[in-house]
Amino acid sequence: MSAINFVVIGYGGMGAYHVHNILPNENERIHIVGTYDISEERQAISQEKGHKIYKSYEEVLADETIEAVLIATPNDLHKDLSIAALRAGKHVVCEKPVALNTAELDEIVAVAKETGNTFMVHQNRRWDPDFLIVRDLYRNRQIGDLFQIESRVQGANGIPGDWRHVKKQGGGMVLDWGVHLLDQILWLVDSPVKDVKADLSYILGEEVDDGFFALITFENGVKAIVEVGTSNYTQLPRWYIKGIEGTATIQDWALNGKMVRATGREDVAAPKPVQAGVGLTKTMAPPSELAAESIPFPEAKADFDPFYKNFYHVVRHGAEPIVKNEEVRNVMELIERIFAVASAK
Amino acid sequence: MSAINFVVIGYGGMGAYHVHNILPNENERIHIVGTYDISEERQAISQEKGHKIYKSYEEVLADETIEAVLIATPNDLHKDLSIAALRAGKHVVCEKPVALNTAELDEIVAVAKETGNTFMVHQNRRWDPDFLIVRDLYRNRQIGDLFQIESRVQGANGIPGDWRHVKKQGGGMVLDWGVHLLDQILWLVDSPVKDVKADLSYILGEEVDDGFFALITFENGVKAIVEVGTSNYTQLPRWYIKGIEGTATIQDWALNGKMVRATGREDVAAPKPVQAGVGLTKTMAPPSELAAESIPFPEAKADFDPFYKNFYHVVRHGAEPIVKNEEVRNVMELIERIFAVASAK
Repeated sequence: MSAINFVVIGYGGMGAYHVHNILPNENERIHIVGTYDISEERQAISQEKGHKIYKSYEEVLADETIEAVLIATPNDLHKDLSIAALRAGKHVVCEKPVALNTAELDEIVAVAKETGNTFMVHQNRRWDPDFLIVRDLYRNRQIGDLFQIESRVQGANGIPGDWRHVKKQGGGMVLDWGVHLLDQILWLVDSPVKDVKADLSYILGEEVDDGFFALITFENGVKAIVEVGTSNYTQLPRWYIKGIEGTATIQDWALNGKMVRATGREDVAAPKPVQAGVGLTKTMAPPSELAAESIPFPEAKADFDPFYKNFYHVVRHGAEPIVKNEEVRNVMELIERIFAVASAK
Repeated sequence: MSAINFVVIGYGGMGAYHVHNILPNENERIHIVGTYDISEERQAISQEKGHKIYKSYEEVLADETIEAVLIATPNDLHKDLSIAALRAGKHVVCEKPVALNTAELDEIVAVAKETGNTFMVHQNRRWDPDFLIVRDLYRNRQIGDLFQIESRVQGANGIPGDWRHVKKQGGGMVLDWGVHLLDQILWLVDSPVKDVKADLSYILGEEVDDGFFALITFENGVKAIVEVGTSNYTQLPRWYIKGIEGTATIQDWALNGKMVRATGREDVAAPKPVQAGVGLTKTMAPPSELAAESIPFPEAKADFDPFYKNFYHVVRHGAEPIVKNEEVRNVMELIERIFAVASAK
């Protein structure tokens, strides 16, 4: 079957990333016809790259050769643009966060159902190599059952100086990075959320959160800590994963880190007390030699299709979407819960 | 003036640590006369070391040559032993945690007031070199005002296999290590506690907590995360300290780590996006060169007396105690609050 004719709506940072970094690998399946952006400067840049330039969104929707659009605009526009595209008979890929809240998402999904067109959210960090390692540890228990999963991203550059610091455009770090980290965790842990404790940070200003902390307890007992910071000149590890039989630290996106597992040997001496500040500690001493061993991270590959390949199969062959709208809704509901419990002081 | 004649009550791990590691440096001020322990094995060991062996607690209290005792027994005995000593005219140094709860502490302090004898709790980690660095950063703002202070100790050896895993003896990690870390934080941050979120872990059994997490928000806006774990085969840093102008990571008790500060220069380029998993990020990219610089930790020494020197001056000259009973009470109250909010689900 032929590739899907595709227009990118919003040729800013993310739109351009799809056009130049993701979609070139998908050109058997996705054919980029053109772009639409309200900025004349961005239009000019896109034109130089050889794309067809649409002058209005109506022009995109009226173009019967176009089957699908990517919505990569500020967050507050996702809902209206998605609904208009679905109603015009287009399939939609929407950047994250899908919308500003569950109510907006429900409106979109209702129109997708009504029209029969596909609506899929680009939760692309399900394919991150670091996350795939964590997913492998969760499933294959190389360090035993995981009981606490800590996921952090920390930068020192503040909130990007665009609409992401404007509240009504859906700015703030919970919606920007949080939506990725929470999507990973909810997709990973196959159990309903039982309890949420959360805290927002407003170090850089009062308008939108510039970071947050959430401790999520699942019905199955697993706990997750999810944290985003934008005033962090040194960083805690990207992942800190506690299993019953060992612990894994994935330091960064380059997959530096280490994983240590109990050997289970019984012929080991008790740990020796070590100096800790002005005191001694046996509790916090390293385990005795032979009691623990370093092991490598698993070689973890995605055992599921890349995003746009899956999108193609959903549109062309009615395949199951990897990013399901119910899952996206669960993440948005968790985000609402984080905002609610964090402001309840 | 002469040294204080001193008997150590409970010649286990901590009692022996006082006798062999701390008190030998204080022999101008503290004279160890003997020890009392219910274990005949421990009595024999103490006798070999040349100490007078008391056969009962009554014998210690009846000895008019003795001015003070150290209580280094299981936690559930602290209250009765301290009160009996105070009533017998002795001064008391008590190991942490002072007691099982604020009610017990209030009973002890009432008797200290009534008798006029000194009661001081050995919160020795106020002298830890790592903590003194944090205290120096808080006071001297080398990385700007500190807004989040994260304090963690993590081991892989479980709860020690003694009374510390027995609930009625005051076992569990909140009372064992938590009391140190919380004392440091409350002593550091000169503001009342506004909000506490907490979670306890029961990975190793149901009887006592084997670790905990607390997020404490102070009235002045400072936040502290305090965490103890005993199933951690790799460790997060001992301290992670966020200031408005920089961040410090103190990795371990050997004071490995790093501190990075914004230079405040305006002639720096915007940070360049970096690959992060399957996406790019500018928000989480390292700051541009020239925008941040590494600086060393401050040389931080205690500008206050060592514990037993202070105890001597309190007893002999009516000096102000460094570890005040009101402070100890605030810590115990915070511990009760942690238990309360953690179980409220």
